[in-house]
Amino acid sequence: MKKITVAIVGYGHVGECVLNSILETNDMELAGIVEVPPVVKSMCQLKPQQPAVLKDTRIVDDIKQLGDVNVAILCCPSRAVHRLAKTVLESGANCVDGFDIHNEILPLKKKLDDIAKVNGNVSILSAGWDPGIDSVIRAWYEAMAPKGITYTNYGPGMSMGHTCAVKAVEGVEDALSITVPAGMGIHKRLVYVKTKPDASFTAVAERIKGDDYFAHDETIVKQVESVAALLDVGHGVTIDRTGVSGITNNQSFSFSMRINNPALTAQVMVSAARATMKQKPGCYTMIELPVCDFLPGDVDSFIKKLV
Amino acid sequence: MKKITVAIVGYGHVGECVLNSILETNDMELAGIVEVPPVVKSMCQLKPQQPAVLKDTRIVDDIKQLGDVNVAILCCPSRAVHRLAKTVLESGANCVDGFDIHNEILPLKKKLDDIAKVNGNVSILSAGWDPGIDSVIRAWYEAMAPKGITYTNYGPGMSMGHTCAVKAVEGVEDALSITVPAGMGIHKRLVYVKTKPDASFTAVAERIKGDDYFAHDETIVKQVESVAALLDVGHGVTIDRTGVSGITNNQSFSFSMRINNPALTAQVMVSAARATMKQKPGCYTMIELPVCDFLPGDVDSFIKKLV
Repeated sequence: MKKITVAIVGYGHVGECVLNSILETNDMELAGIVEVPPVVKSMCQLKPQQPAVLKDTRIVDDIKQLGDVNVAILCCPSRAVHRLAKTVLESGANCVDGFDIHNEILPLKKKLDDIAKVNGNVSILSAGWDPGIDSVIRAWYEAMAPKGITYTNYGPGMSMGHTCAVKAVEGVEDALSITVPAGMGIHKRLVYVKTKPDASFTAVAERIKGDDYFAHDETIVKQVESVAALLDVGHGVTIDRTGVSGITNNQSFSFSMRINNPALTAQVMVSAARATMKQKPGCYTMIELPVCDFLPGDVDSFIKKLV
Repeated sequence: MKKITVAIVGYGHVGECVLNSILETNDMELAGIVEVPPVVKSMCQLKPQQPAVLKDTRIVDDIKQLGDVNVAILCCPSRAVHRLAKTVLESGANCVDGFDIHNEILPLKKKLDDIAKVNGNVSILSAGWDPGIDSVIRAWYEAMAPKGITYTNYGPGMSMGHTCAVKAVEGVEDALSITVPAGMGIHKRLVYVKTKPDASFTAVAERIKGDDYFAHDETIVKQVESVAALLDVGHGVTIDRTGVSGITNNQSFSFSMRINNPALTAQVMVSAARATMKQKPGCYTMIELPVCDFLPGDVDSFIKKLV
């Protein structure tokens, strides 16, 4: 059986995990790595210590240099997805991304849907664990109990977006923002900062708490000597709902996970790369796709094993 | 917008809950109730006390008497699904069932797929919580962590199948079988029996423990004066997996629910009735369908709310 050829666009934490997931999968092979433009490179660049497998891997600047690529997986910051997804789709490959700016998903979907249809290929948008898996869980909850409230409780774990926001605050040398679930969808922020030598910690803490990323949640800022010593990419979520099936109240559902964040994000994107091969041209979010398209093998074997 | 017209085939616990779910849904209307043939009637017959809504409801023996029906929902024992699904599909309506004999799903799917394609309509097979929702969860677990073990722990709650099996044992007047999770996918059975006046409890208990339904699990049999006083249709499940995303071990997932069993089964079938309207002719299990097809409204609104 011909393997699905996959390109990795951007090689940071997630890109490295995508490589591992591809190498562990029988139905895919790596076409190569596409280095991202300098503007986004700082967040997803090749590491100095490359795994041995990369020695035999083609590393290029333009996906077209890789020849026959079935799917490209974007391992880049969300802000770069617009442009890179367009480039990939216009090169003729399908595209998977982990775009996570929730309120911009719908307009981006419409844009990528148009591009994918013009080029006759498939884009899967926002493939990760939230948005992604968690979206699917929230949607099934609605199908099971149409009335009710769903609470998504993130963490405890490192928030990439909030960490970036703190790093941009004046006087901050290094930072880590932990999302702490306080129950019922409410969160606290625990921020560890190493201040610059000439900065006042009190003033830095006030600036962080005033930033729009933190102003809406209870935020605790702690000063530390080394942020690097605290870094752990473990994360988690608990999604709870009680709702009503028909006229029966108090139907209770809970989904939780404790995971290595980039490893799970990468695995979901690799599974989504497989799913791109089974769709009609267009752009899709995960709630629009059947789970069996994400799995390797034939439908009958999944029914025997899982249904 | 034209409402989806739905017929209920069989009116027992689940049929009554299906009625409630239809009445609570804006995009559906009840076409009527089809009474099932006498052979399966004992398990899903009309109750003496009918809800007021049934006074204005057409109750017929043959689905064709109801005229324009978009979807029929089978609320009957699994053993009756083969025949009733065929009748429904040949009448021109789509069909949803909750067939739960796991190792017979694949051959039944092939049979119903043929019938649905010949008649140009859609069958959704095994729509409930297990098989059904739980199957979908198990499948997503595989997409997130392809290597690992998933444990499905049922209960504590009343098992319909095991209760029926006990009732058929010689010397049993009434019975209730509770499934008790012992962890890691292992279960105990707690069986409450009221023996017939002339029966020896010890002999009855031995016969139950020797029945193939119980011989493979630790089974505790208790004698009671009244089974009716113990009946509760609450049930639950916990589905756990630790697995590997790429080369990252110990990715941990857990889904659990505490639910009214017939109310959830019915709600999932009603949501599946909606999903039949969006598929190409054929027979599908829930892992083959996108969750958004189960929800009322348009995809864009789900993306805004859930993704």
